[in-house]
Amino acid sequence: MKQRVTTVSWNHGALKILDQTLLPDKVAYVSCTKLSQVHEAIRKLRVRGAPAIGVCAAWGVYLGLHKSKAKSAKQFINELNRVTAYLATSRPTAVNLFWALDRMTRQALKYPAYSPNELKEILFNEAAHIAKEDSDLCDRIGKFGEKLFRHGDTVLTHCNAGSLATAGSGTALSPIYAAKARGKKIKVFADETRPLLQGARLTAWELMQNGVPVTVICDNMAGSVMAKGKINKIIVGADRIAANGDTANKIGTYPVAVLAKYHNIPFYVAAPSSTFDFAIPDGGHIPIEERHADEVRRGFGKLTTPENVDVHNPAFDVTPNELITAIVTDQGVFYPPFTRTLKKIKNENH
Amino acid sequence: MKQRVTTVSWNHGALKILDQTLLPDKVAYVSCTKLSQVHEAIRKLRVRGAPAIGVCAAWGVYLGLHKSKAKSAKQFINELNRVTAYLATSRPTAVNLFWALDRMTRQALKYPAYSPNELKEILFNEAAHIAKEDSDLCDRIGKFGEKLFRHGDTVLTHCNAGSLATAGSGTALSPIYAAKARGKKIKVFADETRPLLQGARLTAWELMQNGVPVTVICDNMAGSVMAKGKINKIIVGADRIAANGDTANKIGTYPVAVLAKYHNIPFYVAAPSSTFDFAIPDGGHIPIEERHADEVRRGFGKLTTPENVDVHNPAFDVTPNELITAIVTDQGVFYPPFTRTLKKIKNENH
Repeated sequence: MKQRVTTVSWNHGALKILDQTLLPDKVAYVSCTKLSQVHEAIRKLRVRGAPAIGVCAAWGVYLGLHKSKAKSAKQFINELNRVTAYLATSRPTAVNLFWALDRMTRQALKYPAYSPNELKEILFNEAAHIAKEDSDLCDRIGKFGEKLFRHGDTVLTHCNAGSLATAGSGTALSPIYAAKARGKKIKVFADETRPLLQGARLTAWELMQNGVPVTVICDNMAGSVMAKGKINKIIVGADRIAANGDTANKIGTYPVAVLAKYHNIPFYVAAPSSTFDFAIPDGGHIPIEERHADEVRRGFGKLTTPENVDVHNPAFDVTPNELITAIVTDQGVFYPPFTRTLKKIKNENH
Repeated sequence: MKQRVTTVSWNHGALKILDQTLLPDKVAYVSCTKLSQVHEAIRKLRVRGAPAIGVCAAWGVYLGLHKSKAKSAKQFINELNRVTAYLATSRPTAVNLFWALDRMTRQALKYPAYSPNELKEILFNEAAHIAKEDSDLCDRIGKFGEKLFRHGDTVLTHCNAGSLATAGSGTALSPIYAAKARGKKIKVFADETRPLLQGARLTAWELMQNGVPVTVICDNMAGSVMAKGKINKIIVGADRIAANGDTANKIGTYPVAVLAKYHNIPFYVAAPSSTFDFAIPDGGHIPIEERHADEVRRGFGKLTTPENVDVHNPAFDVTPNELITAIVTDQGVFYPPFTRTLKKIKNENH
């Protein structure tokens, strides 16, 4: 990839976050020195995408504690618990957030005899490790996933599950980049993804930066594009995958999956193993974030509905496992029956 | 209906058109005194909705000829042909446009011995008749259609097929108004309908004006709302219906129909008989308008994609007859097999 931007990085005592709400207009960063800024950045979707949220949360934990004046490990851990409890309230659906917070906590708890300063170093290293790991996971998703794509394919994707959603080459888009690197020509249709237009703003921008031909369509056009036979394959990311393969992802993913089934087009989900939540048997247990009505009413800087009209604005929907052809992970490509096959995936959520 | 606005009317030598591009912000009218203004109003969707376009075109024909200096009927008819040929280029998909132009022409041709001034009167009366007829057709659609709805129903609609799309009470929304008038409580979910947001701007506004509870959702949310069992019925309008029932309607209608099938929800189309095009056997013959990319790229007054990204922007899609539960018309409710049942419909397009 030519110009990969870094979504989240630690930079001279601050957490530097690419402000994705400003893309594609501006490539600008927010520099967080307070924990509340990290919370706000996640809540306002300055950083978004389940893997990137996880990495951001890990760095957020370090940010929240690197100036701790705790006198003992116990006191330090108490502070750590307050920090993670606070960050856990930023967004409810992406399991990577909770996964990263848990992992930071577990890492600290391994060293009860360490001093607060030593624990800070432990947390720094763990956050850096999570970030590096995320990048590696993306590359492995790319390696496994690219085999699903052929020269000449036209692929539909929804929302942004690219490098902007991760600390690496992306989840859903990583196989496309990997296929391109192997000389396969792939075209992409990007759903604009209302209300926050991650497809129009982010996926289109990211693909253009990387020389992948992309056409933006409104979400409601995917059906007719499929009916015309223009789409060979579909690949999307995931915010949480239940033990049976049911997948929560950006609102609008589920109707794309229904359309894929109707048109007999393979529908792939791509996600790192950290996105699997084996604690829940199916998608019915995934909490779905309801966001502010003004994202729909004033999403474009001006009012596009009657002033006080009722709005329903769920941020995610759940695609049931029977609509999913395969799930591409860093541990390989998994096929139905998912309830059985996904058991092979190893992560801390088992 | 409490506050029905008039979409199109003849007013002191000018054609007065409600400028729907300004709704719901402003209720403002354009007063057309030149034919080019009528063409522009149709092309720019100041007036939209197949039936309203038909009525507008009929008045447009009169506007284009009411100051004619033709010396003979023959000369007048030549001018008439130029006017209708010009208006026919305003938009390609809605058959009502061509139907209205043909009907105005046929009416004039009935009186070859009339003077130009007499023919002007003929055209005025015919345009007024088409407008009145459209209003009556809407009421009949309402009368037949309301029987399909029960007290307590929650209905999804797409785009705007209400009073704003006609010279009367609407097509898809007319049965809802009629049901309300009979004391049935009906709630509506309105798809916002990208790119031009006719659902968010027009349907929501119109329903609120008329005291019908409405919730706006983004187009990509309809699937999850259906999956939660919140929608009992779906009703949409039509821009052209082929002899076999295949229906062209606003882009995004087809995916709603696929979702309806998947969730086993009745999917109704409502249209006056003038929307049927019996000259074409199926939807494959309906020309689909491709509109300017900037409707998607800058639809909200600001750029929401990378500057020059490729965009696909079809204004309509075709819903195949097998996804349609019934078609509600001014001549009754028609059920499959449509190829047989629709033969009973009488219109000038037979």
